Amino acid sequence: MRMVDLIEKKRDGEPLNNEEIRFFVKEYTEGNIPDYQVSALLMAIYFQNMNEDEAAALTDAMLKSGDTIDLSAIEGVKVDKHSTGGVGDKTTLVLGPLVAAAGVKLAKLSGRGLGHTGGTLDKLESIDGFNIDLSEKAFISQVKKINMAVAGQTKNLVPADKKLYALRDVTGTVPSIPLIASSIMSKKLASGADVICLDVKTGDGAFMKKWDDAKQLSKIMVDIGEAFDKKITAFITRMDQPLGHMVGNRLEVYEAIRCLSKKGPDDLETLCKTIAAHMFKDAGRTQSIDAGMKLAEELLISGKALAKFYEFVEAQDGKLEDLDTFIQTEHVIEYNAKKTGSIKRIKARNIGVVSMKLGGGRQTKEDTIDPMVGIELLKKVGDSVKAGEPVAKIYANGDVSDDIYDDLDDAYIITDETVEKKDIIIDIIR
Amino acid sequence: MRMVDLIEKKRDGEPLNNEEIRFFVKEYTEGNIPDYQVSALLMAIYFQNMNEDEAAALTDAMLKSGDTIDLSAIEGVKVDKHSTGGVGDKTTLVLGPLVAAAGVKLAKLSGRGLGHTGGTLDKLESIDGFNIDLSEKAFISQVKKINMAVAGQTKNLVPADKKLYALRDVTGTVPSIPLIASSIMSKKLASGADVICLDVKTGDGAFMKKWDDAKQLSKIMVDIGEAFDKKITAFITRMDQPLGHMVGNRLEVYEAIRCLSKKGPDDLETLCKTIAAHMFKDAGRTQSIDAGMKLAEELLISGKALAKFYEFVEAQDGKLEDLDTFIQTEHVIEYNAKKTGSIKRIKARNIGVVSMKLGGGRQTKEDTIDPMVGIELLKKVGDSVKAGEPVAKIYANGDVSDDIYDDLDDAYIITDETVEKKDIIIDIIR
Repeated sequence: MRMVDLIEKKRDGEPLNNEEIRFFVKEYTEGNIPDYQVSALLMAIYFQNMNEDEAAALTDAMLKSGDTIDLSAIEGVKVDKHSTGGVGDKTTLVLGPLVAAAGVKLAKLSGRGLGHTGGTLDKLESIDGFNIDLSEKAFISQVKKINMAVAGQTKNLVPADKKLYALRDVTGTVPSIPLIASSIMSKKLASGADVICLDVKTGDGAFMKKWDDAKQLSKIMVDIGEAFDKKITAFITRMDQPLGHMVGNRLEVYEAIRCLSKKGPDDLETLCKTIAAHMFKDAGRTQSIDAGMKLAEELLISGKALAKFYEFVEAQDGKLEDLDTFIQTEHVIEYNAKKTGSIKRIKARNIGVVSMKLGGGRQTKEDTIDPMVGIELLKKVGDSVKAGEPVAKIYANGDVSDDIYDDLDDAYIITDETVEKKDIIIDIIR
Repeated sequence: MRMVDLIEKKRDGEPLNNEEIRFFVKEYTEGNIPDYQVSALLMAIYFQNMNEDEAAALTDAMLKSGDTIDLSAIEGVKVDKHSTGGVGDKTTLVLGPLVAAAGVKLAKLSGRGLGHTGGTLDKLESIDGFNIDLSEKAFISQVKKINMAVAGQTKNLVPADKKLYALRDVTGTVPSIPLIASSIMSKKLASGADVICLDVKTGDGAFMKKWDDAKQLSKIMVDIGEAFDKKITAFITRMDQPLGHMVGNRLEVYEAIRCLSKKGPDDLETLCKTIAAHMFKDAGRTQSIDAGMKLAEELLISGKALAKFYEFVEAQDGKLEDLDTFIQTEHVIEYNAKKTGSIKRIKARNIGVVSMKLGGGRQTKEDTIDPMVGIELLKKVGDSVKAGEPVAKIYANGDVSDDIYDDLDDAYIITDETVEKKDIIIDIIR
């Protein structure tokens, strides 16, 4: 088999077969096919797309390129969740304890943040002492004991994806739906769960800027999951503003705790309860999604989900004592509305960038993070504001540069018309 | 400027500007941009195409990547010709002496054959003693003296094209019209002529299998030539069968001499006279193309073109004494028609492959060539044949393998219907 023939076949719009896809993934991962042929193929895929069978074959080939996690030592159904990445996305911190409190097992490997999006590991590590470096044995043992664990990746999962993603990043071939789908799904499948929920963000702060693309991506991922006998649901959720009110590592942990204490915010609570309800149904914990919604509500009201959160933090060596002194920065600066009207949009990407510039995120992989800093959104889409009224609070250590104010000025779209508040979940595909 | 931004711009269908095109050609040639980014860009160009301005800018950037030939020491207008490559294409051997006999200067750098297409240098070198290794000084001096010279390339012309072509060859990005156009035109412009005639072959044995593609390619090359103030004409010519009757190095020299002696074949004579007539007009040698046609005819009938051929061969140390013993092979085997009917097509590619397999061409660049071998087509498209009647002669040294017969069986498309003979020139674009 010659790589150039595969490139020409895809270039001419013909689907590649399983054998051809396995060939290029394997040989590329092993270093037997040069980058320049793979980048040409990736660009051909960008233009000619891949059908469901091709995307499933690509996922399978990538999955088989490295190690997988064996969760069979954990009894019962294991659930997992993945977000395509947004701003203020502390869903795992709420959802995890919520499902674990119901007795459903969540075994989650998470990543770090880069650029304007945050990472769950960074948020957890903002808690003093929190340990995300669990061995596979400790990870499994913790899930067995308290129904949940969140850890960094230790094994060599999907090396093909690492190599392909690095190449895509510098060759303009990131935004290809089948390539994104197989990248996400190969990692999820390598993580070993039986039930998978995907949070596909759409909007300017998200990877999928258009709803149509998000829907296509969701459909292909659900198809791939089903081809691998997983119970899988994709939630297309709005990212026309950050999720919740808090953006920044400790600020988001704080907000997650408030949400687990049934103190909102609405968008985060709705999203977490809805995903939990689908997990309950798919894990056989409830007979219906409606029953799952009720169970989730009860677990929040009863404080059981909150208690599970503290149990989880303690199990991973985190120290979370006094919430009143949890957030401490040199400055807390109010940011005021530039005009009177209704907030139509809060560009999530800008807010993510502001948090990063304050020190709460990484511009490059090597940057260190200030866990305290971030931004609190006092007003959200649909709220009316008066010019000069505070709409956000900046939590900063050190000076706040002018470009941060520029980013905020640009982030808030305020209109004279009335703006309706919209549901966080746009569509559910399963 | 970042290469990834250029890739994404082209990927999204936006034209690249001069500066961007200069950047990637220069930095790639100098080794500062990796192959994998360039191959992704080339694939994006394959899908998104390039407009005339982009193609001209690419040609210019490639042209400037290396040396150019300075023909200013030669007085008057210099003409050059390029063929996109066909089978049995001995046009230069006839056209060169024809225009030189009229006092028009032809300074031509040629190449070698690879795969199913032959090369002018190989054909000339089939003449004992013929020297294609001329220094630039000797090359120019010969053109000044006898009005023509054909030599191999000595200078480092268009290194960007060498590097880009090698990459295109293994990444499925050869058949992109603007990339082909800029590759051809940068080399032609580097060779320094004032008048350029392009022979764009179309048909299964040619690079441009479809007429539409050949027309598009011709138009863009003529536009580029005009942007560089050249007088330029593209001839779209038929390659639904080899040109003339002879395919093989000496066989083609032999046929060229016959053509210069006004002994046909018609297609070759028509093509050479027509190109010559356009050159005469563009070089100011005649006032019109019609007058140019008449002049060409006179130069053939008078024997002046033939005399110029011998003068040219002698000037480059070739020894061409007895034509009767010029072709000598161990075997001359007749190949017979498989059925009765009219010849509809003779797949030029197959005939080229047969010649190569007999030893007359190169499978890889390192192969040596047997100058004697080849194939003579006794019948051509439009001729009626009877089953068992000889339609070709195989000139071979050593055994003729079965797959050569298979190639020939496959090459001849014989139909029950009457087939019209068609003009060699389909269209002229200038």
